[in-house]
Formats: sequence, C-alpha cells, structure tokens
Amino acid sequence: MNIEQRIQAAMERHFNEVMTESTPPTLKAAMRHALFPGGARIRPQLYMAVAMVSGEDAPLITDAGAVALELMHSASLVHDDMPCFDDAQLRRGKTTVHVEFSEPIALLTGDALIVMAYQVLINQSTKKAISRKHANRLLEMMHVLSQGVGAPSGIVAGQAWECESKVDLWKYQRAKTGSLFTAATCMGAIAAGAKPDPWRELGESLGDAYQIADDIRDVIGHVELIGKPVGQDAEHGRPSAAQVLGLEGANKEFQRLIENAARSVPDCAGRHILREMIYKESERLVPQPEYERYLQMVKVNPQRVEKAI
Amino acid sequence: MNIEQRIQAAMERHFNEVMTESTPPTLKAAMRHALFPGGARIRPQLYMAVAMVSGEDAPLITDAGAVALELMHSASLVHDDMPCFDDAQLRRGKTTVHVEFSEPIALLTGDALIVMAYQVLINQSTKKAISRKHANRLLEMMHVLSQGVGAPSGIVAGQAWECESKVDLWKYQRAKTGSLFTAATCMGAIAAGAKPDPWRELGESLGDAYQIADDIRDVIGHVELIGKPVGQDAEHGRPSAAQVLGLEGANKEFQRLIENAARSVPDCAGRHILREMIYKESERLVPQPEYERYLQMVKVNPQRVEKAI
Repeated sequence: MNIEQRIQAAMERHFNEVMTESTPPTLKAAMRHALFPGGARIRPQLYMAVAMVSGEDAPLITDAGAVALELMHSASLVHDDMPCFDDAQLRRGKTTVHVEFSEPIALLTGDALIVMAYQVLINQSTKKAISRKHANRLLEMMHVLSQGVGAPSGIVAGQAWECESKVDLWKYQRAKTGSLFTAATCMGAIAAGAKPDPWRELGESLGDAYQIADDIRDVIGHVELIGKPVGQDAEHGRPSAAQVLGLEGANKEFQRLIENAARSVPDCAGRHILREMIYKESERLVPQPEYERYLQMVKVNPQRVEKAI
Repeated sequence: MNIEQRIQAAMERHFNEVMTESTPPTLKAAMRHALFPGGARIRPQLYMAVAMVSGEDAPLITDAGAVALELMHSASLVHDDMPCFDDAQLRRGKTTVHVEFSEPIALLTGDALIVMAYQVLINQSTKKAISRKHANRLLEMMHVLSQGVGAPSGIVAGQAWECESKVDLWKYQRAKTGSLFTAATCMGAIAAGAKPDPWRELGESLGDAYQIADDIRDVIGHVELIGKPVGQDAEHGRPSAAQVLGLEGANKEFQRLIENAARSVPDCAGRHILREMIYKESERLVPQPEYERYLQMVKVNPQRVEKAI
C-alpha cells in the first residue's frame, strides 16, 4: 500500500467510524461529497512522508493525523467556496457543497468537518487505555493543528486578512496556506515521537511555494487543469504574489522556495527520498512546459496577461 | 468570587491568552463581540456547578472546560444567526455578528470559536508537563464536548435536522440543545475526576427543558425580555414543542422535565444546593407570572396565539 492508498483507506475508515447511522442523512452526504474523491491530498501526504522518515512507531496515530489534516483543509474549502466568500461553483472538478446541497448544509458541513478533525485524534485515546507517551503525542498534535487553523495565525486568520483594508501579503499567505503545511510537517514529526522544530522550515517553504504556485496557476491555468475557475484572484481583488512580483518574478520565487524546502530537510534516513518527492511535486504544482507556453502566448497577445493579473 | 464572576474571569483570561497581537483585528473584534458581554452563560454555570459538587481538584482544568463550552455555544449562535439560517438581526440584545461586521467575518468567527474551544483545553496540557491523570481528563472532556457539537448527534446535527423533510422532534431537539447540556454535566464530572455517566440524565432533562422553554418563550415572550425576535419558529417553519403539544401541554412538559432534572442529581455533598439552583433557573426560563398573563391575554384575543404558534 503506497502513501496515497493508505490515506484513502484511513479517510474511509475514520469517516465510517465517526459518522454513525444516526447522522442526519443530508449532512452526512454533504460531508462525503466534500471529502471523496479528494484532491491531491498534499497535506496528509507531506505529513505522512515526514512521519515515515522520522521512524513512525504508532501507525494508528499516524493515520489519524493524516485524516485530521485533510478534514481541516476540506472544511476551509467548503466555507471558502460559499457565496459570501468566493461564490465558487466548482471544486475538484465537481459542484461545490452549497451548490450541490444548500448554503445552510455547506455551513454545517464545514463546522462538522472541523469538529471531526479533532474527533479522529481524540478517538485514538478513548478506544483503550493508551500510554502516557501516546496521549501526550495526541495532545501535541492537536495543539499544532489548532495553530495551523485557528484565529491568531492559522488558515482562518488567512481568510480574515482578506477582509482587512491593509494586508501584509506574506503574513496573509503564510497564514492562509503556509500554516497548515507547517502543521503537517510538525505533526508528522510528533506522530513519530520526534521533535517538530527541525521540520518547521520545510512546512513554511512548501506552504509559501504552494501558495505562489496557486497564484501562478490562477493566471496561466485552464479550468480543466486545476478543477476550479481561473482568474479568481483578480476577480475578487485578492492580494496575489503574481500581481506583486509579476509572473516571471513569481515563478523565480517559486523555484527558490522549492530549493529551500529541499535543503531544509533534516538529516535522516529517508532524506534523499523526501527531497525527490519535493522536486516531483514542484513539477506538478507549476508544470514548466505550461508556464513557457503561456509566456509565448503573451508575446503574441499581451492584453491577455494584463487582464488576468 | 461566585460562579458567574469566575466564568467571566476565565473567559477574559483565555481570550487574551489565545488571541495574540497578530490576530487580524476585525476577526478579533468580531470574536469579542460574539463572546462579551455574554448571555446567561447557562451551560458553563451548569458545568461548573457539577464540577464543584463532584469535588473539583484542578481549578485550571475546570475553568478551561467552562470556557470551551461557552465558545462552542457562541460559535453555534453566530452561524445560526447568519442569513442562510435565521437571518437574525439581534442577539443578546445587540446586533448579530454578520450585521455588525460582515457575512464572511461571521463565518470565520464561528470557525475560529470552534477551534479556540479545543485550544483552551489543549493549552492546559502544553503549559507544563502535566500528570497522566490530567492529560486523560482533558482528552475525555474533548471527547464529550465533540459529541455534544459534532455531526452524528451534537448541535451541528440538530441544525442539520432542520434541513431534512422528515424530522423526529425529540431527536432534533435532543441534538440541537440537549447535546451541549449533556456535554456540560458530563464534562463537569470528568473535570473533577468523577465518572460522567451518573450526570447524563441531568444534562438531558435540563437540555430538553431549556429547549421547550425556548419554544414557550418564542410564543409568549417580548423581544425586550429575551433579547431576540419572537415568533421565529413559526416564521421559519421549525418544529416546535409548543406547536406539537400546544402551549399548555408544553408548559406541563417543561415542569415535568425540571422535576426529573432535580430528581436525577446523584447523591453528593452539594445535592441540595444544585437542586435549588435548578428550580431557580426554571423560574428564569419560563416565568410563570408571564405565562399566566399570556394565557389571560389569549382569552381576550384568541387570534394572537394562533398566529404565534
């Protein structure tokens, strides 16, 4: 079973465990719609890779952390897509939750997914008497996860910065995307009983890279490629690295962040494999042939890039 | 310091501890708006009363549980008041969060309050090395809290039942209101190191009583008395005990539930005090003079009750 399959199996298992027969049927269907089939599941994959190279010794705790991360991410997508934010119709190539079901159900789905993220971790402690070591790991994982999501500097703060008139672009992006990547790498270490701090820089660099990649794809992408409408940053007046740095500047910064991420991987048995994963992921995030093709097109029709950025 | 003052002090302390300087200012202001000044703080009061009569021995853990309960309750109010649900303008006698700030901020405020509820409990475990006993209490409290809030049968499920075409009124009300009352009594016992199960019936009965009281007040109340618009159940076509049982039937059921709650208090040193608190609270919930006055008024003008129910 590779990492992707392991995450998928854990997602199904935990969903069925928490969402009992008595769950209101529409809410349950909406939660399932938000979670399956998933997107790239990049956060739990990163988390699990870190846990594995850190010598994971409690697979059920590792699994629960992966699911918790994906639940938090999915909750934020469901709420971000709602009419009062992005009013998005498409997500992961299918209709968004509020379009498929209703606005009230989308609101509740996000709330329920946040609570469920904690539940899957807490459930690891209640099944049987667990060791003090494992109870502390679970508490520390929840602590880091909350920091990645909550109001002071997590993804909720990232969204809230969009509502402020004065925004520091890096602070905004660090909160909006970077925070959950940092939570992923740190939680991976904790799940394996390792210290989280040496893994912080990897999460931060990859989070920043991922956000910039999103900005770049928002300019160069096609809806078929990324599964959601393009040109959204410009349309919603959101701060974007592609606006501030220009498209070529943003692509350079993206490459620098990927190099930094690869360099930051602490000395460990799987260092080589993890670095290879990072380079492979960077090609998926901003396919360089796609980027070059866009630059060529702009040379022919310069108006288009001005409209999109 | 009485229970009310202790809760207020704990709320302020935890808010300032979690909401650091770097929190986006509008989000922070909106969270404060949702929390201060509070309503009756009935759930944390009930919780704390149970913890005290159960012989609480870890005051910081007790405080954190009270705050967590109030945060979850406040989160549900902020989201319930939003345009896609009740579209309420008033709450606790002042403007609702989406009216005072904006819809996106109200959505994020609810999310952040849910996460913060877990944070205040988790923070008790990270300040210093805590004993295994206390780590387990915190995990168990979070487990019970999640059950009171989450999708299968917590307050989120309660709201979701409103979106179903077929609803079991008691299942709906048990989830919508009862679940967080049950969490309150059970968490109170756990915080004090006692077994939660003997306290379940108290939470269930009081939760049911509180919901019926809400339905009764929705019919007989004045906006000045309850701090939010009346006649909302009828207007939103929500299931209501006052509709099903009639007003007098609902009042009888309310009295029965209060008696049941008082009887269910387990044998403990403070049993007498706790029972007195319950009777006093019941008078606040459905003031019998107010109820009698309404019945008199209906005799004079029978149309009004038909319109309101």
